[in-house]
Amino acid sequence: MYNKSAKWYQKSGTQGDVVISTRVRLARNLSSVPFPAGLSAERRNEVTQRTREALKESDRAGDYDFLEMENMETRDALSMVERHLISPEFSKCDKGSAMLLKKDESVSVMINEEDHLRIQVMRPGLDLDEAYKIADEIDTLLDEKLKFAFDDRLGYLTQCPSNLGTGMRASIMLHLPALHERGAIQQLANTVSKLGLTIRGLYGEGSKPEGAIYQLSNQVTLGISEQAAIENLKGIAAQIIREERAGREQLRRNPRFEDMVWRSLGLLQTARLLSHDEFMTLISNLRVGVALGIVEGISLDTLSGLISDAQPATIMAAARKDMEPAQRDVERASMVRSRLTRTGELS
Amino acid sequence: MYNKSAKWYQKSGTQGDVVISTRVRLARNLSSVPFPAGLSAERRNEVTQRTREALKESDRAGDYDFLEMENMETRDALSMVERHLISPEFSKCDKGSAMLLKKDESVSVMINEEDHLRIQVMRPGLDLDEAYKIADEIDTLLDEKLKFAFDDRLGYLTQCPSNLGTGMRASIMLHLPALHERGAIQQLANTVSKLGLTIRGLYGEGSKPEGAIYQLSNQVTLGISEQAAIENLKGIAAQIIREERAGREQLRRNPRFEDMVWRSLGLLQTARLLSHDEFMTLISNLRVGVALGIVEGISLDTLSGLISDAQPATIMAAARKDMEPAQRDVERASMVRSRLTRTGELS
Repeated sequence: MYNKSAKWYQKSGTQGDVVISTRVRLARNLSSVPFPAGLSAERRNEVTQRTREALKESDRAGDYDFLEMENMETRDALSMVERHLISPEFSKCDKGSAMLLKKDESVSVMINEEDHLRIQVMRPGLDLDEAYKIADEIDTLLDEKLKFAFDDRLGYLTQCPSNLGTGMRASIMLHLPALHERGAIQQLANTVSKLGLTIRGLYGEGSKPEGAIYQLSNQVTLGISEQAAIENLKGIAAQIIREERAGREQLRRNPRFEDMVWRSLGLLQTARLLSHDEFMTLISNLRVGVALGIVEGISLDTLSGLISDAQPATIMAAARKDMEPAQRDVERASMVRSRLTRTGELS
Repeated sequence: MYNKSAKWYQKSGTQGDVVISTRVRLARNLSSVPFPAGLSAERRNEVTQRTREALKESDRAGDYDFLEMENMETRDALSMVERHLISPEFSKCDKGSAMLLKKDESVSVMINEEDHLRIQVMRPGLDLDEAYKIADEIDTLLDEKLKFAFDDRLGYLTQCPSNLGTGMRASIMLHLPALHERGAIQQLANTVSKLGLTIRGLYGEGSKPEGAIYQLSNQVTLGISEQAAIENLKGIAAQIIREERAGREQLRRNPRFEDMVWRSLGLLQTARLLSHDEFMTLISNLRVGVALGIVEGISLDTLSGLISDAQPATIMAAARKDMEPAQRDVERASMVRSRLTRTGELS
């Protein structure tokens, strides 16, 4: 599932030099139904239909598409994973699993993932308050019809105890080339873990930090309000952003760094074959160069769109066909060239 | 000594895809004067003045500058070596050594190098007949006034026996990326040496083949006419050109090769620091891409001019100041960017 109309991730937002995007996810379950793992296909389907109906009765229904996982091409499901619209586990789900997807892809609701519902809201840049506000509205809207499982002492009940309480995972995607370059991420990870947060690679736990992109998210959901968790995350994020910016100012003084930024642009504008790994390295170099004003005439929005669209399955989803890696490298290089030539003026 | 008016090497010529340039050099000595090595400063000066006078009396005088080596900045002398206008040995000469240089730099006469005169003619592309014709005219013109040492049996007399006879060294500068890539140059060197020729790097004996550029020249000067030596060189050159072109057609079929050509252009168009070694590698890749029509909108002339002007001392000569290597790398990158942006359209 990929279409070319405007998407949330084609925009950059507040603190966009360092923060690529914000995501808030709420885990919710229907009080009257066991968790999905223990459900028959029939009852899973009941959850799906009830959720769909709940949305249909609201004035928001027209903004959303309803997508059944059993009807989704594998490449489309994988592309959704790449764009953080669904979890890797959910991409493998079949009969009885479905999703509601807002047309600009800023909101997705996975139905019958680990929990009955995973409501997810994404925003460009650092925008935790707005992301939570939107998630909360949808939560309230669906709760009215579906009656979510809630315990006065424990909060929202979830399949995995690690989500009990708020059921909220708030995360921000950070571009940290200077801290990465300095080898400062491990120490940062140790520090934030003591503060109830976690920092990890682009695709979550255990994934490597492609293009120096990291996810910072809250870990604690129990005994803390959503607002307190968000304030905590905001505070730590502000400090990381300050450190990253200071590191970038140091990089800027090194002529070899400026050279590397421009060379990365040159390779992106001319290469005929681009692996995803190389692309991520080059676009990361270019992104920090654009953020620092070294390269002008190319927007962070263009780069955000590229980071999303150059991913392997997303390339295949856009082309509506499966491809060998070598074919994707040709397609990726072609897409990158056309987007960076259209927008950019070489100095 | 460097000025920006049109020079012979800013053009490409016949077989320009493979042959960058042609050079013919004649070693001559005045019959009445011992070889330079045995001369007092006074007598060396006499040779210089007589040569200068001989040219002055001709209708060609206005085309030439007279340059005394003792008055030449070191960077200007080294730039002339880089542009093959004088020999490395001659660049170190001082009092009593001088040169006549045609304003388009296509003809140079070194006075009091190893021999009294070294007449040298350069032409773009493969142009041995014309280069020899021009050299022969100047030879005749100067011989009338200066009376060159000539023996009916040995031919022209020269300081080093290896030049006895015609005193002629004819050479062509070849761009051989496909043969270089294939590791075929050593075998080629063995073959041509059996045919009285030699092949070596850009700056002569023992120099490394920067940018896959090689010099092919005749070795034999005794017992052979100039015409026969030139025909021999032409025959071998034709065969090397055929092999190189066949090799390029094979390269063209490899997508990684096309990718490398484009990436080389991208780096040249964007880098802020370019060492001479890297420049030569990249320009070699680009040159074969232009010759094969992969890259359009950039001429071989532009590349020939760059190959000449991006050399270390030539960069300093153009800027009229000495520079550290790191400064030259900045200057080189800047020059390369401006020339490749001005002419080229990216596809």
